[in-house]
Amino acid sequence: MYETAGSYGDDSPIAAFATAPVNSALTLIRCSGKRSIELAASVFEPKKINDAPGNTIIHGWVISPDTKSGKLIDEVLVSVFRAPKSYTGEDSLDISCHGGSASGKAVMDTLKSAGFRDALPGEFTFRAFLNGKLDLTKAESVMELISAKTELSRRHAVMRLSGSLLNEINEIKKLLVQVLSGAEIYLDYSEDEISADTDEAAGILPNQEIAQQALSRLRELLASWNVERLYQEGITVVIAGRPNSGKSSLFNSLLKEDRSIVTDIPGTTRDWIEAWVSVKGIPVRLIDTAGLRESSLSAPIIDDVEIMGIERSKLLLDEADIVLYLIDGAVGVTEEDRDFVFGIGDRGSGIGDRGVEKREQGLITSELRVEDRQLLVLWNKADIASLPAANQFAPNKLVSVSAKTGEGLDALYEAIASVVQAQEEFQLSEVSASLGTERQKKLVASACAALEEALDMALQQQPLDLIAPLLREAVNSLAEITGEVSTADILEEMFSRFCVGK
Amino acid sequence: MYETAGSYGDDSPIAAFATAPVNSALTLIRCSGKRSIELAASVFEPKKINDAPGNTIIHGWVISPDTKSGKLIDEVLVSVFRAPKSYTGEDSLDISCHGGSASGKAVMDTLKSAGFRDALPGEFTFRAFLNGKLDLTKAESVMELISAKTELSRRHAVMRLSGSLLNEINEIKKLLVQVLSGAEIYLDYSEDEISADTDEAAGILPNQEIAQQALSRLRELLASWNVERLYQEGITVVIAGRPNSGKSSLFNSLLKEDRSIVTDIPGTTRDWIEAWVSVKGIPVRLIDTAGLRESSLSAPIIDDVEIMGIERSKLLLDEADIVLYLIDGAVGVTEEDRDFVFGIGDRGSGIGDRGVEKREQGLITSELRVEDRQLLVLWNKADIASLPAANQFAPNKLVSVSAKTGEGLDALYEAIASVVQAQEEFQLSEVSASLGTERQKKLVASACAALEEALDMALQQQPLDLIAPLLREAVNSLAEITGEVSTADILEEMFSRFCVGK
Repeated sequence: MYETAGSYGDDSPIAAFATAPVNSALTLIRCSGKRSIELAASVFEPKKINDAPGNTIIHGWVISPDTKSGKLIDEVLVSVFRAPKSYTGEDSLDISCHGGSASGKAVMDTLKSAGFRDALPGEFTFRAFLNGKLDLTKAESVMELISAKTELSRRHAVMRLSGSLLNEINEIKKLLVQVLSGAEIYLDYSEDEISADTDEAAGILPNQEIAQQALSRLRELLASWNVERLYQEGITVVIAGRPNSGKSSLFNSLLKEDRSIVTDIPGTTRDWIEAWVSVKGIPVRLIDTAGLRESSLSAPIIDDVEIMGIERSKLLLDEADIVLYLIDGAVGVTEEDRDFVFGIGDRGSGIGDRGVEKREQGLITSELRVEDRQLLVLWNKADIASLPAANQFAPNKLVSVSAKTGEGLDALYEAIASVVQAQEEFQLSEVSASLGTERQKKLVASACAALEEALDMALQQQPLDLIAPLLREAVNSLAEITGEVSTADILEEMFSRFCVGK
Repeated sequence: MYETAGSYGDDSPIAAFATAPVNSALTLIRCSGKRSIELAASVFEPKKINDAPGNTIIHGWVISPDTKSGKLIDEVLVSVFRAPKSYTGEDSLDISCHGGSASGKAVMDTLKSAGFRDALPGEFTFRAFLNGKLDLTKAESVMELISAKTELSRRHAVMRLSGSLLNEINEIKKLLVQVLSGAEIYLDYSEDEISADTDEAAGILPNQEIAQQALSRLRELLASWNVERLYQEGITVVIAGRPNSGKSSLFNSLLKEDRSIVTDIPGTTRDWIEAWVSVKGIPVRLIDTAGLRESSLSAPIIDDVEIMGIERSKLLLDEADIVLYLIDGAVGVTEEDRDFVFGIGDRGSGIGDRGVEKREQGLITSELRVEDRQLLVLWNKADIASLPAANQFAPNKLVSVSAKTGEGLDALYEAIASVVQAQEEFQLSEVSASLGTERQKKLVASACAALEEALDMALQQQPLDLIAPLLREAVNSLAEITGEVSTADILEEMFSRFCVGK
């Protein structure tokens, strides 16, 4: 079905860090390939790895064959897996070393001296695919899981890992194959038996209602992509406001942990801090800006660092999908606040334009088109100064919160989510199967296009021998999604975007 | 022997991340304690974990008992360990989840809902100690291994993990016990039988030569601490020089990987960059500074960022144990170079003073006292401009290098190492046993002190009933090192400095 080329295709013994070699309790090194157990045994004491049954764990020491550099390398646990019962389907080992950088590096060096080579990105999963352990949708879901930013994105990736997309694609393909084979039988029959009667054969695509059913299921999958992408990539929310308006407190409340310094001295946050938070399952890149004072304002600039902060804040505001602008309730609405709120109102279309521009460059397809909805004005410190009944801003633009007590944060979450859900393509609904990658989306789109054209032609009563190739094209696109049909370069391109060790 | 108090002492089921939940292939969660296998089985499919023999691996899914939030949590491998054959000596499990933050978090949440609690820092190793799986010197070596910065520091930590220090302490203790029991037998005898003859009993400490032998072995251990500390904490080396003199190139050559941007535009390095490198086994915190131009110089200041860079560079120079000052060989020695080199020569004693000051505050005991040796002047770009035979600097102060070709880097390593080794306390010699922690050092020092006093008294022919308690004190100090004798608060204090998951 597929070809393998380059180093990705071989079964040589490979090793890679499966966890980051940072200050942590353990570091895991993964090994796989031909002779991998035998090679690992050559730098291990006791030697019993060689006789260990699959799925068992041996305790011992990695030792250096080069006694000059110290015989004992590290005390480890080795998990032994025997083909085909392993992640890759090959003989493999997981070596659990002491954490930190030194032990892992020393063990890795020893493994290399024993004959292992560095694994390429995604090479373990690539081998698992080659050995039939998983299809491409499951392989891709492995990487989606690793980069999942919220519980919801994780849950969708897990569904794909368990086969939800694979099953849906296979079911749709089965429907199309049924339609295709019906058409092909008719073609065969008409050629052999009633070849003179071709006009009558035209336009009668058998099982058209099945084709329609397949099309609507494909369209549902396509629609899932916008939401899925939102879950994967998330949106950027920037917290702005005058010094001491409570930006860092709000940032911390949203993070529910103490990441940035919160004090009563204006201008404490000297640089921007960011973190990913989950707002109703939507991954939000939350950014806390430095004091947003323009140098043209009457307030004196404290120092150069603050100037840099202001420049950066402006850049960050341009990147924002949503800006949370804080008004210090204890002070009330200032001139500066009004300038910002009504200023960004004007700039709203500018931000929208940027989105359009990016879309035109083909960079972004699902960007929020929030236009003037992207600004949420927050009345902060509501615990000590409640929101006046009459205010200068439209009521739907003002959310009353207290970063300190947490009051109003639920309303803020709702407000952020409703900005997102106001866009039709982001209607969040629980789906049983959804697309996880751009690659899958493109293939479903081309299957869709081919099927639509086929049905159009059937409607126009075009001859079946023109319709059948389109149906075959749709089937092939679906087969490519799961990897049933694939080429070496597509596979390599795909797996090389994986992380090393996976 | 010891008491256990608080949560550290119990055997309740605990769980912790053993690897950092960052973007990596796998995340490992470690579980241990009473009923831990049964509890894990309650959120796992298939259920066979419960019947799994020790040291075996089961593949399956972590599932949520709360079906609302999605039944499938993650596809995992579970390593099952049965008491006493485990790290902690209890029933335990290692759960290998998909990497990234979401999967690990979801599995951890599920484990907690099943009845596990978060492990305290070092709690797994604490339990291993309580269950007699390792002594305190081995427990401490586990943390030393994790934070080891160079191959040499790793190797020494591994030696302690394999029992080198434990054996040495036990052997010395055995010698002391022999001396002590000789003295005590004499005391018993003299009391019972020849109590009238006490004067004759005084001054005859039996096995004095054995006590002397123990003392010299204790002193050797103590001496190992300075070197060991150097290996653990390392030294700070700052690279300074005029813009474009090749600081970043040198930094990169020493790192042997491309971490900072190297261009031909002066002033490219806007902020300092640092990395740990190993120079002859000594961990070196290597710092690349921004262009070191003083604002009083004729060269115009480019921008505010650069001013900040200069301020920071000055602070970094004050922190340096060794400064590598680069002269641009292609330009030759400039006024600025001369100012710096002879200026820092004057400041040399100042840096020495700072060391003394810190030592007086008790902050640092092993700091380099390099005085005027802390400055190494490098003639860079030797590949295109060789060092003139006559130069303005003392020959032993000038090293000719080419950051670009790597020429002269070995000589630079030698020069750095010889600055360090010029200090008597840093004579690097291979030792069979060495101390790894401040705690061990303090206890060896007090054993030493007690033994010295005992031998002094024996020399002055003091009565044995005054000498014996000192010997007992020395023995107790040694027993405390290995944890044979210990108290709950000392243990808790020690293990709470471990990382979580270990």
